[in-house]
Order: sequence, then C-alpha cells, then structure tokens
Amino acid sequence: MSMELLSPEELEEALRRIGAERYHSNHPFHRLLHDGKLTRGQVQAWALNRYYYQAQIPVKDASLLARLPTAELRREWRRRIEDHDGDGTRPGGIERWLKLVEGVGLDPARAVSTAEILPETRFAVDAYVHFVRDRSLLEAVASSLTELFSPTIIAERVSGMLRNYEWIHEDTLAYFTPRLTQAPRDSDFALAYVKAHADAVEKQQAVLAALRFKCDVLWSQLDGLYYAYVAPGFVPPGAFVPEAA
Amino acid sequence: MSMELLSPEELEEALRRIGAERYHSNHPFHRLLHDGKLTRGQVQAWALNRYYYQAQIPVKDASLLARLPTAELRREWRRRIEDHDGDGTRPGGIERWLKLVEGVGLDPARAVSTAEILPETRFAVDAYVHFVRDRSLLEAVASSLTELFSPTIIAERVSGMLRNYEWIHEDTLAYFTPRLTQAPRDSDFALAYVKAHADAVEKQQAVLAALRFKCDVLWSQLDGLYYAYVAPGFVPPGAFVPEAA
Repeated sequence: MSMELLSPEELEEALRRIGAERYHSNHPFHRLLHDGKLTRGQVQAWALNRYYYQAQIPVKDASLLARLPTAELRREWRRRIEDHDGDGTRPGGIERWLKLVEGVGLDPARAVSTAEILPETRFAVDAYVHFVRDRSLLEAVASSLTELFSPTIIAERVSGMLRNYEWIHEDTLAYFTPRLTQAPRDSDFALAYVKAHADAVEKQQAVLAALRFKCDVLWSQLDGLYYAYVAPGFVPPGAFVPEAA
Repeated sequence: MSMELLSPEELEEALRRIGAERYHSNHPFHRLLHDGKLTRGQVQAWALNRYYYQAQIPVKDASLLARLPTAELRREWRRRIEDHDGDGTRPGGIERWLKLVEGVGLDPARAVSTAEILPETRFAVDAYVHFVRDRSLLEAVASSLTELFSPTIIAERVSGMLRNYEWIHEDTLAYFTPRLTQAPRDSDFALAYVKAHADAVEKQQAVLAALRFKCDVLWSQLDGLYYAYVAPGFVPPGAFVPEAA
C-alpha cells in the first residue's frame, strides 16, 4: 500500500484498481446469475435479499444528507433519495425493485417484511448504514463509489438475464434502466468530491479503505447467497426456502 | 409466535427452544471442526476469525455497563469485562484466545491486526456491538443468553478436537476451561434479569427476538467460514488464505 500523497488522477486510478479487483462483478454468484445457471428459486432468493439493500440505500443517504454543510451539496445528494423513494407519482428504485421481486414470482410483501432475508444480508447492509453514519463525510462519500463500476455489470446483467431465463421479461428488469444514467451522474459527483477533498495521505488512505469496505459489503451479500442457495446449499434457520421446482 | 404474556418459566422454555433450533452447535462447520474433519489451515481460519469476536466482546459489554443503573448491576457485568481483558497479571479471554491462535500455528499478530478476517465476521460481530449499544437494556442483556447453551458445545469441542487433531494439545485449548464456569454464572444472572424484567408481551417478544438475532450473529460467522474455506471454498478478496498443506 503506497503511503505517499497521490495526485487526484493517481487517486482515481487507485480507486479503479480496487474496483477491478474487488467489485462484486467478479463474484461467482453473479456469473451464475447472468449466465442463466440459476433456478427460479435461487433468483428469487437473490431478489428477496437484495431488496433489503435497496430499501436501506435512502436511509444511508439521508444520514449523509444530514451532515452536508451547504444547500448545493444537499441538493445534489437529495436527488439520490428521490431516485430511490420516488416522488409519489413516479415510482422510485425501491418500488421498482418490488416489481422485480414480483416478476420473478415472489409476493413483494415477503421482501418488504425482510423476515426471510439471510443474516449475512442484514449484517452487511446494516454495516454500510452504520459506516456512513459514523465515519467522516469524506469516507461516507467515498463508500458510494462502487457506482463507478455498476453500469458495466447492469448492462451485462440485463442482457444476460433476458437471454438466459425465459421467465424473465424486459419489464421485470425495468429497475435497472434508469440506473444506467443515475449511477454515472452520482459517481461523477462523488469522484470529483473525493478527488478535491482527499488532500492528505491519511485522507486518501481512508478513501481507499472506504471503497474496499463497500466492496466487501456487496461481496459478502453474494457469499451468503452462494452458501445458502448454491453450494453447499445450507439455508440458515428462518431464512427463505425456495419452493421445490 | 405466541403473542400472550408468558410466565417466567414459559419465557425460559421459549428461550431454550430458540437455542435448540438456532444455536451454532447445529452448524455443519462445527460438526466438521469437532469431528476432526478440517485441515490445519481451516482450523487456522476459524481461530483467526473467531478472534475478532472475542476481541469485541468486552467492547459490547462496556457499552452495556455504561447503561446499567446501579453499582450492584455494574459490578456483576464488570466481571465479564475482567474475564475477557484480564487484570494485567492473569491473562483474560482475549489473551488466551491468542494462545489458541498460536497453538494452531498462526502468528498471533495476524489475528490482532484483523486485516485478514472475512467480511462476514466483521459485519456479524459489529452488528452485535451495535445491537447492544442501540437497543434497550433488556434486549442487550437478552442477547447475551447464547451462553446458556455454550457449556455443552465447549465440552464437545474440547474433547473432540483433542481426540481428532494430533497437532492440538490441551494447553492450546486452555481458553475454554474457565468458560465452563464463567458462562453458566453469567447466563444465570442474565436469565434471572430477563425473567424479572420482561413483564409485558412486547418486552417478551423483544427478548426472544434478541436471542434469535444473537444466534444469527454466531451462525453467520460459521456460514462465512464454511463458504470460504470448506465449500465451495471461495476466499473473498483480501481474506486469509491458508498455506498449501
């Protein structure tokens, strides 16, 4: 780990290297998901668990919003909350994720209750919410930078899932379409913020650690899914059990 | 789930039923560990990760201690911290766990750094610390009640590991001996506290949920170990990789 002060460009390169190594696009569960290798019950487990992540995103963004010092910064960050919570007429990301849950054949109420999610999902997502609430603003912003890497995985996911699962339709995956423009807009802002504010070695190291932490949050959710629903396939007590095919 | 007020004895029965169903003695990783079915590298991974849990126990106990209203209660709970942190002459549980780490062939400094633990370990343990800090005192006390079930698993573990791994010696497992008396003493107190204070349906339900939560904390640490080091055996980026045998 370099302990010298990086230029803003070098910092961006270091962030992108972390993504290349640790972003959950590299996780075996995603390869199975995108390649059509999962059963419907396994895809349901993914949708059900991932809902908890979606539902907590505006919670973590609200705690970040509460700490931003200027109206300009708050306006920028508020848009993320609107994207997820909607405005009462246009549905937000949470509501659209429930369409996905429904589209893969699960009652959305089962996702909303969160009663059947894996402990791994709950602990990882809650760790993210706590991190954003408890760490410096710079680290909180940096932890959002996994969005730098999401357009590629989303494009791969949507095309792969449509091609490989006959029971998945385009409107089931409608969640992802706006994310293709929202994520780059959000990550452009966050990256510029981080490059401008990480002006000391310790701050740069904290920023890199925050992105590694966030990669772990995403990665461990897939570890939990793989363990419980792929191999060895031991579902923890109380968690979702797919119906027999 | 019964929503009637339980007698203290019924509450205890309900707590013990949760243990019978959800305590991590039922986890397949423990069966492998105790039956001598793990490699030395897999046992090292267990010792390394479990260290983080051990190290955070006095942290969660200190945040509980800070909220106890009387000297009598605080003296009772302070003993738990002394058990783990030691008194500067006799080693506490943390130091004794490092002997275990060393005894299975790992440099204790690697455990202390926590750099190589699984994200699942960190998130589950941190979830426990946050739970104790953020929930009611009654729920915080109730979450310690997994100790009701630990003497059995400890006895099974020590005898199983000594019998089945020739490279494990009695002094490697010295951590566990005092736990056989400390855990029942602590859980007797916590159980009496919970039975006396959970005097409304909502409080009883919260107590049962707290114990379920804590079982999840223990269970998901073993899920992570199984997933990464047994099957399928995918080690998350940055986590401990056993040396080739």
